[in-house]
Amino acid sequence: MPADYFLPHISRMNEYVPGEQPREGGFIKLNTNENPYPPSSLVLRRLREACEEDLKLYPDPDASAVRRRLGEIFSVHPDETIVGNGSDELLNIVVRCFAGPGEKVVYPSPTYGYYEKLVRLQNARPIPIGFPEDFSLPQDLALEDARVTLIANPNSPSGTFVPCREIAGVASATNGVVVVDEAYVDFAEEGCVRLIDSYPNVIVVRTMSKSFSLAGMRIGFGFANRELVAGLRKVKEHYNMGRLSLVAAEAALEDVDTMRVHAARICATRNHLVQGLVDLGFSVWDSAANFVLARIDNPPASRVYAKLKERRILVRYFDQSRLRDCLRITVGKDREVAALLQALEEIFGEERGEGQKGPEVDSKAGGR
Amino acid sequence: MPADYFLPHISRMNEYVPGEQPREGGFIKLNTNENPYPPSSLVLRRLREACEEDLKLYPDPDASAVRRRLGEIFSVHPDETIVGNGSDELLNIVVRCFAGPGEKVVYPSPTYGYYEKLVRLQNARPIPIGFPEDFSLPQDLALEDARVTLIANPNSPSGTFVPCREIAGVASATNGVVVVDEAYVDFAEEGCVRLIDSYPNVIVVRTMSKSFSLAGMRIGFGFANRELVAGLRKVKEHYNMGRLSLVAAEAALEDVDTMRVHAARICATRNHLVQGLVDLGFSVWDSAANFVLARIDNPPASRVYAKLKERRILVRYFDQSRLRDCLRITVGKDREVAALLQALEEIFGEERGEGQKGPEVDSKAGGR
Repeated sequence: MPADYFLPHISRMNEYVPGEQPREGGFIKLNTNENPYPPSSLVLRRLREACEEDLKLYPDPDASAVRRRLGEIFSVHPDETIVGNGSDELLNIVVRCFAGPGEKVVYPSPTYGYYEKLVRLQNARPIPIGFPEDFSLPQDLALEDARVTLIANPNSPSGTFVPCREIAGVASATNGVVVVDEAYVDFAEEGCVRLIDSYPNVIVVRTMSKSFSLAGMRIGFGFANRELVAGLRKVKEHYNMGRLSLVAAEAALEDVDTMRVHAARICATRNHLVQGLVDLGFSVWDSAANFVLARIDNPPASRVYAKLKERRILVRYFDQSRLRDCLRITVGKDREVAALLQALEEIFGEERGEGQKGPEVDSKAGGR
Repeated sequence: MPADYFLPHISRMNEYVPGEQPREGGFIKLNTNENPYPPSSLVLRRLREACEEDLKLYPDPDASAVRRRLGEIFSVHPDETIVGNGSDELLNIVVRCFAGPGEKVVYPSPTYGYYEKLVRLQNARPIPIGFPEDFSLPQDLALEDARVTLIANPNSPSGTFVPCREIAGVASATNGVVVVDEAYVDFAEEGCVRLIDSYPNVIVVRTMSKSFSLAGMRIGFGFANRELVAGLRKVKEHYNMGRLSLVAAEAALEDVDTMRVHAARICATRNHLVQGLVDLGFSVWDSAANFVLARIDNPPASRVYAKLKERRILVRYFDQSRLRDCLRITVGKDREVAALLQALEEIFGEERGEGQKGPEVDSKAGGR
């Protein structure tokens, strides 16, 4: 059997299945935390200009121009920055650098499902530590003395945020590396980049997929002290970033204002969304991200998910512990959120009028 | 010390240094085997059209459209194909899937220097087997019974090619996986894709960086039976390919003719280059790639490299065993090759007239 060729821990692994990307159009897509607003027009213009003969040449393996700009914006040295093919690549590199077979990688749970896959890829040992009900940082996070601690802040799927000083506390208390995954930080109040000045074991990872409206370009960037960065660079593919991704990243950093305007708009819409959900009877965790986690007992969240999908509105349903009575809903444009709230009102009306006749949930689509 | 955080085998590793990418223009660049001709105009047009709002959305994690087209062109099922962020990513995935700590990975040597890094990343054991003088396949390649055997065909830096039936012989004789790295195959007579029908342990990897003139886009693709592909897919990043890379890949496969025209032109220029080098006193191995390996005893190859660089002509010099008396020269356009031959003639005239007064080689630029 061909499967025998694979290392045993690879054979045992499951494929990570990201949120649905419908092939057909016409969906209101509130399921994968994309930005509803377009990328900066500067990014699009620079990209168009770069679609020319030079694509025959290899890209800059050092992403020098992008790292220089990151240095300016975040007041760090370019040697304290690294650029990746999405923050996923950087997370992958980090786990690969620090966690060997059987070694512990800790993360509060539930969180981004990809962490577990990255740990299993290394044949390392994933240690999920349950978040308290309010999604504050688990007290015993540092007790495991793991090689790597992964903290998504704001966390997905809860949208909740913990103050940087608490993360600093974890960094002080552990002998391993602490990775702060700040994919959603531009929708929150503060980021942890400054921690790299005081903590030689902190790595902060960000992405342009959410706030910068560039999920399709695969751009992530990270910060750490230069010794850590030098080690991470050895492990990354030398040509991990294509020329166009570098062009997009550089232009996006030249026009951070557009990102900030969109982020502020999303935060305003988030308030309306939360209010509307609460009015409908959902409990909603405080969100510092571009999505919210909303809990409902009746009708069942799985059925609400399915009925929304019938109406061509996609939200995220996770068929896993602690999340089965929840929906994760991306903050779209005002009119998308209005359409969602309208659809929910109709569904709740039907459900409360008609009892249990709704369709079954599509279990495949609801996975992680 | 921060370095302590790293796994020991990562700390021990060196960074892989790819060939020089000069920041300034004005060089005749014959050092990294890029294509001197531009990408297909269809590719560039489609790319420009795709620089729009949809870049805010995640890409297709399955690269479905590209894999469908690969299936048509290569007469395989799409489930027998995989698409990567350059063939480097696919090679990385392969080694990660099959070679655990201490396990053997075999490759004929000298070859693509990145293989060794990929093996060390896994804390596996690289076993380079010396090519015979004529760069035919080493007889004892299968004797090591390695978990993975890596064969670049055509090989770099020699440019030499071994018939597919010999690779089939290795696949029969080993219990591990055999990876045929066909980065340069479009300049050769035959490829090994059909081997996947008969050998459940063969993986064929290709790239659009060379023949398709898309080194800047980072597009690789691979073929294997569907069980192997299913396992490789579990390990790849789900969003490894950005939207624009997928657009470029699909368009390039729609216009294979342009690639073939350019490849034929390069093969014709290669003949002139070889003849010119032989006339100057080089010995040149038979090349089935878009570059040649040329040996010279006097003047020393390192000095020829340095003097060419002074004249703003970049070729590749490898400061390593068996290659110190060689230059690897990419086949450029006719006029670039003419300029190279002219420059070599001048350098040889100087050297033979002037003795040993040439500049020292820039060791940093030539190394790995």
